[in-house]
Amino acid sequence: MKKHNFSAGPCILPEEVLQKASEAIINFNDDNLSLIEISHRSKPFVDVIENARSLALELLGLENKGYTALFLQGGASNQFLMTAYNLLNKKAAYLNTGTWSSKAIKEAKLFGELIEVTSSKDKDFNYIPKNYTIPTDVDYFHCTSNNTIYGTQMKNFPKTEVPLICDMSSDIFSRQLDFSKFDLIYAGAQKNMGPAGTTLVIIKDDILGKVERVIPSMLSYQAFIDKESMFNTPPVFAVYTSMLTLEWLKNLGGIPFIEKVNKQKSALLYAEIDRNSLFKGSVIKEDRSHMNATFNITSEALKNKFDTLWKQADINGLDGHRSIGGYRASMYNALPLYSVQALVDVMQELERIS
Amino acid sequence: MKKHNFSAGPCILPEEVLQKASEAIINFNDDNLSLIEISHRSKPFVDVIENARSLALELLGLENKGYTALFLQGGASNQFLMTAYNLLNKKAAYLNTGTWSSKAIKEAKLFGELIEVTSSKDKDFNYIPKNYTIPTDVDYFHCTSNNTIYGTQMKNFPKTEVPLICDMSSDIFSRQLDFSKFDLIYAGAQKNMGPAGTTLVIIKDDILGKVERVIPSMLSYQAFIDKESMFNTPPVFAVYTSMLTLEWLKNLGGIPFIEKVNKQKSALLYAEIDRNSLFKGSVIKEDRSHMNATFNITSEALKNKFDTLWKQADINGLDGHRSIGGYRASMYNALPLYSVQALVDVMQELERIS
Repeated sequence: MKKHNFSAGPCILPEEVLQKASEAIINFNDDNLSLIEISHRSKPFVDVIENARSLALELLGLENKGYTALFLQGGASNQFLMTAYNLLNKKAAYLNTGTWSSKAIKEAKLFGELIEVTSSKDKDFNYIPKNYTIPTDVDYFHCTSNNTIYGTQMKNFPKTEVPLICDMSSDIFSRQLDFSKFDLIYAGAQKNMGPAGTTLVIIKDDILGKVERVIPSMLSYQAFIDKESMFNTPPVFAVYTSMLTLEWLKNLGGIPFIEKVNKQKSALLYAEIDRNSLFKGSVIKEDRSHMNATFNITSEALKNKFDTLWKQADINGLDGHRSIGGYRASMYNALPLYSVQALVDVMQELERIS
Repeated sequence: MKKHNFSAGPCILPEEVLQKASEAIINFNDDNLSLIEISHRSKPFVDVIENARSLALELLGLENKGYTALFLQGGASNQFLMTAYNLLNKKAAYLNTGTWSSKAIKEAKLFGELIEVTSSKDKDFNYIPKNYTIPTDVDYFHCTSNNTIYGTQMKNFPKTEVPLICDMSSDIFSRQLDFSKFDLIYAGAQKNMGPAGTTLVIIKDDILGKVERVIPSMLSYQAFIDKESMFNTPPVFAVYTSMLTLEWLKNLGGIPFIEKVNKQKSALLYAEIDRNSLFKGSVIKEDRSHMNATFNITSEALKNKFDTLWKQADINGLDGHRSIGGYRASMYNALPLYSVQALVDVMQELERIS
């Protein structure tokens, strides 16, 4: 019996994806060789990465619209650096909605003038700022669509004339958006896509070539575009497993289907958080994330009892991020509705026995 | 029946490592969770990366000698960049023994004056230059211990007062060396250590902090040292599989044991290349690599017959690198002696029927 896995990332992946990934480690493509011991230039693996790249564009509705999909290394943290290295000439604007935005801002500051258009730091990042102006003379505007740590999610994105860059690490492929409004999207794989070790970058080709600095090969989007995402040896296993997850999602019905499931799951949990007086949500309602629900227990005296109950119920990964504490239930694409029901049952059980 | 896998990288890994890695994708640590869906900050995974880091130092004889082992992302290509970013203040010296050295030189040139002390380009990199002088006023000297493409290997390393940096991607853990002579060693995992997706860096702590430029976090060795190799989410699967391979090597008897096996394997193959008039080695004898044996067929008319024979014998990955052609037999640590015998048998069969 598998656990109910609410881990914030690396996180739950579909059971059939894990099965196929496990088999490929022993015998890939019926060639009597492991996936991880063949050349990355061999046809079977080139097919994998090409399939993964086109599935990513297809699921986002970005095929034939001037975008390229890349599978890079280094996580979103490396994208904080690469976006600035490749796109920041003089000045860029950032929206600060928490830890990850702050880190992106810190790295970009090495390359030009940074304008923090606004921040929700005044209330410990428990909301998404709404009324702000994006300067028109910046090289780009950068935002974080979902804050994994605080549990906030941007429901709307600003209209702007400048290139729009978004870190979607924790909610990509989870909801319908007009992705063609974005010029660059990046996402570490280890939430809705695959294992840690690769980062999806979706880039509109025409935004490149506008900075003056010389860009080292490993930081250059153009170098990877020119080599079809294989400037050097890619992280084979992480790319393959991501391809399997994207196939799984496509077969289910793509983003329109999974968005409905995700809404059901988060509605079920937030309803209980709001109904049950032993719990209190951390984020203002309109900005609550469908991926990461953060909440606290209203009586510290009940904490041990609650922790015992959910662990007994085979629930995993419910502790809040080490920087803020409390609880966090991450409900990524692969988490089944019945796992959320199991958590709700435990919350009601605590209420019953308290 | 597994194939005889002579692939140059990603390459053969020990059968028991593949088995354990495959099982961990389904159920890791008997926790009913996959290795790739648990938090990288959880105790089971922290134990993995700590074990991998200390095994690497132990096998190299570098414990308690002021070195730190890191598991980074981006392959050796990213180390071409990071070494220069972190250590090149004004001037550095490089030995050019082929494609990978040339790429390292290209990336480092962005950060200072590069002195190519010498090169074996005059003879298509078929030897290792021996008599050269390393300037004493450089920030470091960089070399490549084994050239995977051309099949050359440095048997001796120069004595120098300046920090010694070595790309050991394709022969680390394969032979005994006094590793304490090196100040920084790096190696992409996908030869003797694990799957593509992580890079081992062994760094002597006291060489850092001497450049003036500000180093972005993801390129900073110090940032990863400070966070015990987890500045951000590490490539979990690649680190775990590397740990399994290092454990396998330790249990066999470490580098002293595997060096003997590697010498047996390469002696067997090179003896046949020299004996059989249908084949000719590409590299001058004293610089031949024990890892990658490059050779050509003396009669192009026999090429198709030879290719058919080795494929029929379940041999994989014998084609030379796409940039130079010919043949290349890569004999990494996990390749059994009987696989080399299978190749020698095919070479003798070709001679018999020709």
